Amino acid sequence: MTTATIQQGSVIGKEQLLEHWQGHRTLTRRVIDAFPEKELFEFSVGGMRPFSQLAIELLSIGGPALKAIAGREATPYTEEGIAPKTKQELLALWDAETATINEYFGQIPEADFSKTFNLFGQYEFPIYQNVLYFVDNEIHHRGQGYVYLRALNIEPPFFWERG
Amino acid sequence: MTTATIQQGSVIGKEQLLEHWQGHRTLTRRVIDAFPEKELFEFSVGGMRPFSQLAIELLSIGGPALKAIAGREATPYTEEGIAPKTKQELLALWDAETATINEYFGQIPEADFSKTFNLFGQYEFPIYQNVLYFVDNEIHHRGQGYVYLRALNIEPPFFWERG
Repeated sequence: MTTATIQQGSVIGKEQLLEHWQGHRTLTRRVIDAFPEKELFEFSVGGMRPFSQLAIELLSIGGPALKAIAGREATPYTEEGIAPKTKQELLALWDAETATINEYFGQIPEADFSKTFNLFGQYEFPIYQNVLYFVDNEIHHRGQGYVYLRALNIEPPFFWERG
Repeated sequence: MTTATIQQGSVIGKEQLLEHWQGHRTLTRRVIDAFPEKELFEFSVGGMRPFSQLAIELLSIGGPALKAIAGREATPYTEEGIAPKTKQELLALWDAETATINEYFGQIPEADFSKTFNLFGQYEFPIYQNVLYFVDNEIHHRGQGYVYLRALNIEPPFFWERG
């Protein structure tokens, strides 16, 4: 796959991809905020992780992965050091990562999105696929958070609200 | 937003977007298939729709929406006429729509993905955003299906398997 091929058939631009992701991150923030403090850290369905833990996974991917891509570093995946104890702390980490993502995403040249990168030293894919994976994984886990909220009899935010 | 802007900063091509979506559809098919017959049509968590009904929503969007986009038809959203009674019938509809999506997706010129279209007569967005919405909505509901499966003590398919 060459850069020329991508440019010929392009339908989504770099800024549009970032905007798409950050729109989803805004919705995920709203889902975190919809949980009561205790249930955010303790409640789940079917033996799954509570939503705070799913959010910690997302925080351990987005910013660190983009930093690794921008610097071509083979940093392994880790959730160490990301251990919010309250909803407020989790939301603060979320907001800080919004800026981190914007910064490192901006450092990746457009032409590099078709190049492969061995993310976390184990996922060797074109960079555009890595970024789509981050977004997909966030939507996937957030959808699970919607079920937790429904099981708690809490109305989740509208799926289409991203601003 | 002009086509020139998109081409300048392009990171995802038309064929890549289709491949991305169909990869997700392959995984969703696997999730449908993972449900026992009865639970597919009856089981849910928190008063939500059973997974068969979520799949019917996805079938009512993907093919019909792309046909509407390709022909610029203001067809309203409807789930009428999509009423599988068994898992086998649902999977057959799923497989038929794979071809429908490929056909109509192919008919949309690359340059049109940045143009707005009033989908189902009510969602006025650039076509690339409409297509991303179809994929996002599928991931969202499939993530909910994962919780149903876990609650049924059934191991869901691996999230990263798309082939």
